[in-house]
Amino acid sequence: MTINIVLGGPRGKMGTEAIKMMTNEPHFQLVACIDRKNNGKTLHDIQHICDENIPIFDDAASCFQEIKADVYVDLTVPQIGFEYAKLALEHHICSVIGTSGFSEEQIDELSILAEQNKTGCIIAPNFALGAVLMMLFSKMAAKYFPDVEIIEKHHDKKIDAPSGTALKTIDLIKQSRTSKIQGHPDEYEIIEGARGGDVDGIRVHSMRLPGLVAHQEIVFGSKSQLLTIKHDSFHRESFMDGLKLAIEKVTHMQKLVYGLEHVLDVE
Amino acid sequence: MTINIVLGGPRGKMGTEAIKMMTNEPHFQLVACIDRKNNGKTLHDIQHICDENIPIFDDAASCFQEIKADVYVDLTVPQIGFEYAKLALEHHICSVIGTSGFSEEQIDELSILAEQNKTGCIIAPNFALGAVLMMLFSKMAAKYFPDVEIIEKHHDKKIDAPSGTALKTIDLIKQSRTSKIQGHPDEYEIIEGARGGDVDGIRVHSMRLPGLVAHQEIVFGSKSQLLTIKHDSFHRESFMDGLKLAIEKVTHMQKLVYGLEHVLDVE
Amino acid sequence: MTINIVLGGPRGKMGTEAIKMMTNEPHFQLVACIDRKNNGKTLHDIQHICDENIPIFDDAASCFQEIKADVYVDLTVPQIGFEYAKLALEHHICSVIGTSGFSEEQIDELSILAEQNKTGCIIAPNFALGAVLMMLFSKMAAKYFPDVEIIEKHHDKKIDAPSGTALKTIDLIKQSRTSKIQGHPDEYEIIEGARGGDVDGIRVHSMRLPGLVAHQEIVFGSKSQLLTIKHDSFHRESFMDGLKLAIEKVTHMQKLVYGLEHVLDVE
Amino acid sequence: MTINIVLGGPRGKMGTEAIKMMTNEPHFQLVACIDRKNNGKTLHDIQHICDENIPIFDDAASCFQEIKADVYVDLTVPQIGFEYAKLALEHHICSVIGTSGFSEEQIDELSILAEQNKTGCIIAPNFALGAVLMMLFSKMAAKYFPDVEIIEKHHDKKIDAPSGTALKTIDLIKQSRTSKIQGHPDEYEIIEGARGGDVDGIRVHSMRLPGLVAHQEIVFGSKSQLLTIKHDSFHRESFMDGLKLAIEKVTHMQKLVYGLEHVLDVE
Repeated sequence: MTINIVLGGPRGKMGTEAIKMMTNEPHFQLVACIDRKNNGKTLHDIQHICDENIPIFDDAASCFQEIKADVYVDLTVPQIGFEYAKLALEHHICSVIGTSGFSEEQIDELSILAEQNKTGCIIAPNFALGAVLMMLFSKMAAKYFPDVEIIEKHHDKKIDAPSGTALKTIDLIKQSRTSKIQGHPDEYEIIEGARGGDVDGIRVHSMRLPGLVAHQEIVFGSKSQLLTIKHDSFHRESFMDGLKLAIEKVTHMQKLVYGLEHVLDVE
Repeated sequence: MTINIVLGGPRGKMGTEAIKMMTNEPHFQLVACIDRKNNGKTLHDIQHICDENIPIFDDAASCFQEIKADVYVDLTVPQIGFEYAKLALEHHICSVIGTSGFSEEQIDELSILAEQNKTGCIIAPNFALGAVLMMLFSKMAAKYFPDVEIIEKHHDKKIDAPSGTALKTIDLIKQSRTSKIQGHPDEYEIIEGARGGDVDGIRVHSMRLPGLVAHQEIVFGSKSQLLTIKHDSFHRESFMDGLKLAIEKVTHMQKLVYGLEHVLDVE
Repeated sequence: MTINIVLGGPRGKMGTEAIKMMTNEPHFQLVACIDRKNNGKTLHDIQHICDENIPIFDDAASCFQEIKADVYVDLTVPQIGFEYAKLALEHHICSVIGTSGFSEEQIDELSILAEQNKTGCIIAPNFALGAVLMMLFSKMAAKYFPDVEIIEKHHDKKIDAPSGTALKTIDLIKQSRTSKIQGHPDEYEIIEGARGGDVDGIRVHSMRLPGLVAHQEIVFGSKSQLLTIKHDSFHRESFMDGLKLAIEKVTHMQKLVYGLEHVLDVE
Repeated sequence: MTINIVLGGPRGKMGTEAIKMMTNEPHFQLVACIDRKNNGKTLHDIQHICDENIPIFDDAASCFQEIKADVYVDLTVPQIGFEYAKLALEHHICSVIGTSGFSEEQIDELSILAEQNKTGCIIAPNFALGAVLMMLFSKMAAKYFPDVEIIEKHHDKKIDAPSGTALKTIDLIKQSRTSKIQGHPDEYEIIEGARGGDVDGIRVHSMRLPGLVAHQEIVFGSKSQLLTIKHDSFHRESFMDGLKLAIEKVTHMQKLVYGLEHVLDVE
């Protein structure tokens, strides 16, 4: 059965990848785009990768009224995405929103709206299935392996450290790990910072080098054994499997979930 | 609450580690050993690591009658272990058996016995928690990442390839993976064997070098991303965390489970 | 001092990267291109990445006569490259040729020509400095670590196995390694191919998965220690540092060398 | 030809491993030990691993006078080792000293003594050949890959960070690397220490977990490529190949060298 999709944010890098994916997927049909800038044009006018004359709207409300859609995919920015998602849910159009930028209040508001309208909504801070599984497995493992360190590696153009994914991973680990002080009670640093950053007793290390793309490794240690979970992402194309899954899953849902891990069917 | 333990196989390498662990664990009390060879002696006579005068029986039935035990731990060989486990269950003593050598018929027989006597029984082919989690996570991941290869690395004294753990991992992966032919349709080998062994379309590679101990890595690949799950075991001491957990869990069970993954409390 | 460069093969993938690099490097000046197809056009006509009106010749001899060049860089195919390189050397223009496709006779012929004309020539089967160092270090290490296995990992569109780099690495290792039979004398395979391919007693494993790019790892094992040398290449851009170095070095040479390792200044 | 060896420090952990190695090596003959504590006893009295009646001296001078030795191996502590090595060189006995604890003055004094007596002397801060090669290769690579970070991993009983080997590696890298500021000019840390310790612009990360033994990884990054050199040491047995090599090499030398890398015959 074909799923008719409206895409918000067709010009961005993620939007471009999403158009490619939707065009290649036989049971997906991109039926319209929402873009502040190109009202009245067709997608082909602004994205050479797309041959079809898919209409562009600058007004989300008009789009959701005029176009018969099953799913709205939002790849804009949080402020705009929040408004568009509300409109979509009010029009009983399931929504998949790729952002980590919503406040708790915004998530609550969308959650209530989804339940009232019995319309599915997935908010995904990360669409890379491998990263989502990495975090899920880390949370599971931490219950049995409370001694853990994280090393994340990115290109040297990344200015912040540690990465958002590393912080999110630690957050999940903390939910299942029995709190403990790791290391040796008398440990010290000859060179300041050598032991890495400390987030609630979990050490995190950030490597930044040209040549690196986006990598994270969680190492769990216990007597004479190590368990390591690692994810490498080489391109934003890696987000498309997760986006595809979210689009398929959201049509069968009647409420909101935060995080792709909640639509995975593991075990 | 103290758990009273009878140990079968106190002289082997695993038995030696188990005695160390039981002696150090405050709520475990080793109360007797079963050993074909040293009837009437005490454990101290045959294992210098143990100070206590723990009695040794060569007859399992006598042991289970005379000694008040909560758990029987079997670290002997499959043929003997099967008989001892049956006796233990008949005496309503929970059993933890470390073996991958039982036939399906033997497992069924013990399973019926455990249910009839409402007595817990755990058969664990692998006590290393990290290895158990590695296999569990691999099964979960394979549902979303059907493209997968395994590389296992062991010391060059190991004569078989691939390892039992690799074969077991593939077995688990197959339960959740949609069957597919991996690789390129026109692929070929310049050097025979370079692509590794093929088990139902999953490639497995065995590295054997001095210096290696026991390592396994499962690599899942998808568009522009990789998910890797890895376990390193450096010594049989790594089995003790899992044995400890099994002893604790089995006292609350009234049936048999095969594989430590079924007593893990993940998610 | 500016180095004036003629490029053969400006339309290929490597050629495109080379133009970018030469344009960005202040002391490099691309002065002409040789291309069978676009005689009389300028580079800007065929490569949007280049703004300058660099002339294109379809005849190499005319190009080398009319244009004052220091270095000829050949990124065409072996048959053509061989003829162009001969012409360049005859015109006393140093040559850098990126190919692994020359026969020994062709290499000898160019070598004689280079010495006669006292003109430098570098033939490089691989321009990735990291790969060149990886092979060099592997050759060095093999003298002290005769037990060695290679695992190379590539995307699943690669149809041959093992890779050319793996075979070249083994070739270098053999030059310094004392021949020995690795593994256990009684070793066997449960699954055929699990131990990998055997090249003169050295095992090589090829992993092929979507998401992988181009990776190789050489593992040396000895009593209780491992030495691992690994190279990851994510894009042909990784060849540009080596090409740049070759262009700089060749102007100071008066003979031919085969392999970038011979112009590296290590230790 | 048999090499006759005197060993200083036969009771320590390294001494014990050395005795095993010397006993197994057909062309090595352990002829005496120096030990402050057990004068007049034989080695068999204090080390069950050794069957032979090798004499023990508490006085080094007497030992070197009475015993015909080719090589003195010192595995004591720096203060004692310095005195014993001086005596050995004065008696024209080649010396292999395993220590990183000598001052520059002490090294100079031994160096002069070695040259005057035309007697070989090797001072080795690290006998693990893999670690020595790792450092050597890192120094070589840094010339072409100035962007580099180090991660070293040890068990959580190690109280200092970073390790001595990491600091030594950085020291060597600095000798060949063109000084540069790595990373992004606007980079910042959300969690203090996440970027690791900074030694002359080179970042170093120390991971400490149970299960880890002694591991170090040097990652060199450049456009779209990574070169990684890694060493794993699982037991002090890993030092024996290097000690064996040093003993063989020192008999052909007539001066002092500091560091095993100087007796390696690479390239």
